[in-house]
Amino acid sequence: MVNEHSAIIDRYDAVIFDVGNTLVRQANPGTPVGELRPELLAGVAETVASLRGKVKLGIVSNTTSMTSADLTLHLAAAGIGEAFDFVVATADLGVHKPDPQPLKVALDALGVTAHAALYVGDNEVDRMAAERAGMGFTFTGPNLFESLVRHGHHPKSAFRRAAESVRRPDETFAANVGQRFDGLVKPVGSLGALEGIVARIAAIQHTDMPSADPCGAVIFCGDHGIAVDDTVTPWPQEISATMAEVIASGRAVSSAFARSNDIYLEIVDVGLARQVGHDLVRDESVRRGTADLRFGAALDRDQVISAIEVGARSAERIIAGGSRLLCVGEVGMGNTTISAALIAHFCHVTPGDATGRGAGIDDATFDRKRAVVSDAVASVAGIKDPISVAAAIGGLEVVAMAGFIIGAGSLGVPVVLDGVVTQAAACLAAAIVPEVAATCIAGHRSAEPASHVALQHLGLEPILSLNLRLGEGTGAMLAIPVLRAACRTLSEVASLADIM
Amino acid sequence: MVNEHSAIIDRYDAVIFDVGNTLVRQANPGTPVGELRPELLAGVAETVASLRGKVKLGIVSNTTSMTSADLTLHLAAAGIGEAFDFVVATADLGVHKPDPQPLKVALDALGVTAHAALYVGDNEVDRMAAERAGMGFTFTGPNLFESLVRHGHHPKSAFRRAAESVRRPDETFAANVGQRFDGLVKPVGSLGALEGIVARIAAIQHTDMPSADPCGAVIFCGDHGIAVDDTVTPWPQEISATMAEVIASGRAVSSAFARSNDIYLEIVDVGLARQVGHDLVRDESVRRGTADLRFGAALDRDQVISAIEVGARSAERIIAGGSRLLCVGEVGMGNTTISAALIAHFCHVTPGDATGRGAGIDDATFDRKRAVVSDAVASVAGIKDPISVAAAIGGLEVVAMAGFIIGAGSLGVPVVLDGVVTQAAACLAAAIVPEVAATCIAGHRSAEPASHVALQHLGLEPILSLNLRLGEGTGAMLAIPVLRAACRTLSEVASLADIM
Repeated sequence: MVNEHSAIIDRYDAVIFDVGNTLVRQANPGTPVGELRPELLAGVAETVASLRGKVKLGIVSNTTSMTSADLTLHLAAAGIGEAFDFVVATADLGVHKPDPQPLKVALDALGVTAHAALYVGDNEVDRMAAERAGMGFTFTGPNLFESLVRHGHHPKSAFRRAAESVRRPDETFAANVGQRFDGLVKPVGSLGALEGIVARIAAIQHTDMPSADPCGAVIFCGDHGIAVDDTVTPWPQEISATMAEVIASGRAVSSAFARSNDIYLEIVDVGLARQVGHDLVRDESVRRGTADLRFGAALDRDQVISAIEVGARSAERIIAGGSRLLCVGEVGMGNTTISAALIAHFCHVTPGDATGRGAGIDDATFDRKRAVVSDAVASVAGIKDPISVAAAIGGLEVVAMAGFIIGAGSLGVPVVLDGVVTQAAACLAAAIVPEVAATCIAGHRSAEPASHVALQHLGLEPILSLNLRLGEGTGAMLAIPVLRAACRTLSEVASLADIM
Repeated sequence: MVNEHSAIIDRYDAVIFDVGNTLVRQANPGTPVGELRPELLAGVAETVASLRGKVKLGIVSNTTSMTSADLTLHLAAAGIGEAFDFVVATADLGVHKPDPQPLKVALDALGVTAHAALYVGDNEVDRMAAERAGMGFTFTGPNLFESLVRHGHHPKSAFRRAAESVRRPDETFAANVGQRFDGLVKPVGSLGALEGIVARIAAIQHTDMPSADPCGAVIFCGDHGIAVDDTVTPWPQEISATMAEVIASGRAVSSAFARSNDIYLEIVDVGLARQVGHDLVRDESVRRGTADLRFGAALDRDQVISAIEVGARSAERIIAGGSRLLCVGEVGMGNTTISAALIAHFCHVTPGDATGRGAGIDDATFDRKRAVVSDAVASVAGIKDPISVAAAIGGLEVVAMAGFIIGAGSLGVPVVLDGVVTQAAACLAAAIVPEVAATCIAGHRSAEPASHVALQHLGLEPILSLNLRLGEGTGAMLAIPVLRAACRTLSEVASLADIM
């Protein structure tokens, strides 16, 4: 029998695991040790069985309340206590990750060098500790066993991992959910469009118990060379970095919507013209804004591939952190122009049919915008390779969103789209990996004409239609409570059989 | 100068007040006494000033942590400590409301008889204690001073209080909110339909800081004589009482939506055919189901007036309990038939244009339903008095919802409508008090043809359009997070001036 972790076993002498949300479900902080009820996460038992005896296995867990002995008992209660050759509870050492010291203690005890060992964790602190200790690292995901299979095969590129392990929606789960809806105490079909949307989430998540929680959102930010003057937009590039800072400081509409709707929010700078000075804006900048597409390609192919990678890695990271449904949004002055060109190309409509007024422009600007879109579409006519099309037109945040959609889709996590720019990203994603159109959900119907075209191309029907034209993921985040309430009905509402 | 509380002063020798959420904002349970920061509620200082020296004033407050002396200091810190002639903290007695004993102690100390004293509180426990002590009682509301003016003038009927103190939306507040939206860090108008909806809430609530919280929902339940056989619906009357019980037990779709969206939910039986055996279904039954409108009037005029009163009193009660935005919903087999007839009458369309398939019926049933609606509309042709129309057609839950809408509107609290039956109730309410159409918000566009007619008649544009056809307030409750997030932007989002 083939060991699906052979790539891991060939490459490493030891695998060390974090515990909370990597091996067992994390308890709420402050739960007394005596009340902890360990619950193994998906794929953990299989992972232990496949690696045990093949590589050394260790534990390094941040804890302030448990000793190594407590932790060993805790893992034994979960049924995997005997699998580990060495267990470190950071409370014993008095230093905690991201300090690499606890990992170094474990490496010494296991008798392996850092470069022959892999650390597996669920959050940034784990990754930082492994990096500082000089070890390999991988994030866990919805299923630990599968995460390690993926890591073994493609240690370098999140995009390659995603593109080579596309997970199609499974209609069996949709059908099961449809049957469950029919059996609830309500007239058949009376939840209208919600029943189909929940069934779709079930199919994407490969589960009979679909959920909109935990929900995360990533807003990708980038600038566009076309916005250096007022050709297509009255807003200067500078506004993009400022908006990233306002969102990060919790004072933008998207910040308020995320708080109001209980959504974890990340902001990623994938190519703003100005470097942002805020800790909560993650710096993954590929270059400081695209080139002006009126005078040549916006990006080179390597930059497109880097931006896709930023997006795919963001999906892995936020899913490893727990999210099971995602929103995507963007900030980037001038990006409705870019989106119109991308949608016209990928959806085979005329530039005129795809160009709208974005966040608000006058007639003269609108005329110039249409001309720019026409020229951009003409410049990529007949080009089949989507990477080349994205290089010609841009932009970095759009490309990163495509990578994000592909990454999330391959992990079975639905992405709720916002307005026309996110829909352009979904069209690009679907041009690269066609299956991911079916892992997207449309949050809001944009007023932009290209939006109608893109949604039809992707086969999506939006949940809301409120004439928002703000971006920042607002239309996606506003749809989350609808999805959340609809998913909850499946587990909380009585069946007709129950009450008869 | 006229004392606006002269009716109270003429009638009573003493007024005794509850404290938490009546005079000062209620602290979270468990807040240490030393950390309590008293905050007077609207109208309290004015009330104390107008009543002091005219009647005796007392305090009876349920508390387990404060003595009467603590309470006196607490009221002093709020600036009204010296106003009260006697203060009872129930902790001193060891018995708590709804036990009438603490009120009786206060009456003795003040030297007044029960029937010459009024108790003012914010919840059911207060009302029950006053009733058992033999005192008068009134609920407080958004403004204590105004609540007492209203009570003084119309002690008996919540509907009369409402109808005679209609509070029109004030467009000044809508304009202020519009200006504030224009100054936020976002393109002007980019929140689309949300900006208008929030401005409307501001106008109804008479505030520059509109809020969807706290949010409450009431589901009114009643049966219809027309549903005794399968003429217009395949569902027997019995289902209505069962659904009321399922909602109350937390296992209906509406229960799940209320939990998911943080909405306080009440269920009121205003006329179910079978008495319900669940503590959380409030029994306000006017009669056990209406008469069959095919053979005569569904109700008599007194029953219509009683049902309106149930609705208006429900609005006062739930608003006194803290709600500042309300959802309304219903349960009643056969009530889309009733609604089609009411809407056809009040909106002046043909019965054919108003009749749809409700929660799901076959062609033969649909034909019979149209005939019933036609006959009902013909029976009220030319009748101008809306009470007489409601008596002819019914039903009790529809009439109660009309009273609820009128009651809430007169207190400046918006009511979010659900599907076609709640819209029929809004049409009836507007026929009685035309101003209340402007205090309603449409949560969801129903698929029923009468819904389109009613919304146009009321001048409302719905927030959601998801083809729900369930009732139970589901379409209203699903719209709440959208309103909540939109209202929050006004207080949480930076202005352009802030970031420049």
